[in-house]
Amino acid sequence: MESPAIAVDLAAIREAHARIMGHVERTPVMTCRALDAAAGARLHFKCDNFQEVGAFKARGAANAVFSLTDAEAARGVVTHSSGNHGAALAWAATRRGIPAWIVMPENAAAIKQANVKGFGGQVRLCAPNVAAREAACAAVQAETGATLVHPYNDWRVIAGQGTAALELLADVPDLDAVITPVGGGGLLSGTAIAARSLRPGIRVYGAEPKGADDAQRSLAAGRIIPQTAPKTIADGLLTSLGERTFAVISRAVDGIGTATEEGIVGAMRLTWEKMRIVVEASSSVPLACLLERTIDVSGLRVGIIISGGNVDLDRLPWQR
Amino acid sequence: MESPAIAVDLAAIREAHARIMGHVERTPVMTCRALDAAAGARLHFKCDNFQEVGAFKARGAANAVFSLTDAEAARGVVTHSSGNHGAALAWAATRRGIPAWIVMPENAAAIKQANVKGFGGQVRLCAPNVAAREAACAAVQAETGATLVHPYNDWRVIAGQGTAALELLADVPDLDAVITPVGGGGLLSGTAIAARSLRPGIRVYGAEPKGADDAQRSLAAGRIIPQTAPKTIADGLLTSLGERTFAVISRAVDGIGTATEEGIVGAMRLTWEKMRIVVEASSSVPLACLLERTIDVSGLRVGIIISGGNVDLDRLPWQR
Repeated sequence: MESPAIAVDLAAIREAHARIMGHVERTPVMTCRALDAAAGARLHFKCDNFQEVGAFKARGAANAVFSLTDAEAARGVVTHSSGNHGAALAWAATRRGIPAWIVMPENAAAIKQANVKGFGGQVRLCAPNVAAREAACAAVQAETGATLVHPYNDWRVIAGQGTAALELLADVPDLDAVITPVGGGGLLSGTAIAARSLRPGIRVYGAEPKGADDAQRSLAAGRIIPQTAPKTIADGLLTSLGERTFAVISRAVDGIGTATEEGIVGAMRLTWEKMRIVVEASSSVPLACLLERTIDVSGLRVGIIISGGNVDLDRLPWQR
Repeated sequence: MESPAIAVDLAAIREAHARIMGHVERTPVMTCRALDAAAGARLHFKCDNFQEVGAFKARGAANAVFSLTDAEAARGVVTHSSGNHGAALAWAATRRGIPAWIVMPENAAAIKQANVKGFGGQVRLCAPNVAAREAACAAVQAETGATLVHPYNDWRVIAGQGTAALELLADVPDLDAVITPVGGGGLLSGTAIAARSLRPGIRVYGAEPKGADDAQRSLAAGRIIPQTAPKTIADGLLTSLGERTFAVISRAVDGIGTATEEGIVGAMRLTWEKMRIVVEASSSVPLACLLERTIDVSGLRVGIIISGGNVDLDRLPWQR
């Protein structure tokens, strides 16, 4: 299969930023001497855990929802997600005053279903497999005319996710490198396009769990190698790359680091203790890669995008 | 006993701010729609949990340490504290390159002793009572010539703590009210002086646990009523007012709210969940007072100083 042309550039990310300002938070960039010392680099954390929905996913969802024509918007949006994208799409749709249907596997945690409903989304349950999920989305589309907003394999979503790096580099223009977690690859793709355009010599890395290392294997193979049985606490990073995100990442990313489960939990706890912010396990993978030296940025100025802070406070991973 | 003259004014707080800038963080002010809705007011959280030592105590300690003459400084500083002030004084002394002796009760948690040592302080253990503590401090002073820096009943410390409100009102000039936790009263005193001077009509409130309500009782009685058997999870708020903090608070504070233990734990958890920041129990008492309606600021623009974020992540209060 031919790799698709990359349909997002810096101009598209700037347009997305103008579109979603006033909806998403312009999140702060934080630093921490203790983590700098541990990592041997100067770290700048872009705190998208502070978005109202608790994740960067607000950016892509808002860009997609506010890109729709009024006629399209009136018919609503639909997606499949058991995590932050579903909540973010519900949130963005509510802000535009349109319906959002979120297809979730019937075994999705009650707290996640409640979260989607809390932001105004309508939950549609399906069997926990890809075929059932796609059928459920197609059924909603056929029934309502809603627009599908894929969690990552969508240029509007990728452009929206790129706005985090746009803000990060506006605040810290002299970064040498930027690192994001990589699951489906929307955040990493948007970040790579924004960062490379603004600062061509910058290094861009993805970070993923060893137990869900499809991005690293896909880049090595030169083709998408789907994640078949992911096993990691970083539950935002279970998915495989899409053809669009693979097209961007294979061209614009310098490498993918991987982290052990112990490393991820340790980095998560260290962030809570030293920075006093609540980050989810998926967001701790970049720091874990630095501490385990699977990404080498010693002595450099490094941006890390903290992807989210939605955590079940009754079940913290270091207490299991 | 005659109430002491108040030796701190806005000029002293501005001087303190100039003195400690470059040492303490200029912490951000955060907002949260979900907490606004819960409290029925527009809340602005001054996040001093993001100080390097994890607490506003860095401000007063730095002001005291950097106020010393070189000759005084060379002999070091001493204090008694089992909590954030001890760590902060050790941190500030290390930044000036001078010794700090921290007298702690021998039953202080190992993690707290390690924290003081981690910031370069020298721990002196004593029996867990006031007489032993004062004797230990006096012994260090006699031995070394170190300057005592009391945790709150010290004008340099009070002026330093007032810098948080200075920054808060610079960032959000139109606040109608400001609330801080009250233990010994250093933060509340400094806040009251700064806020009243900058904005005379502003309301200033203290917030304390019902299980350690000496400030409320002292204000009602018109004299210091010491806390004899405090019982609360908010372990930063166990102490009684001092004569200096009582002098300020009795003249410049509009009222003291109290919160139940359940309310404090609930407010703490809500802050972690909705704001995604790590705050300690003591810092959650102002929000708890709003949610339990023991402080009435409905519909107003309210500043809350988040005093700290030092928490034992292995023992969270909602899991006990």
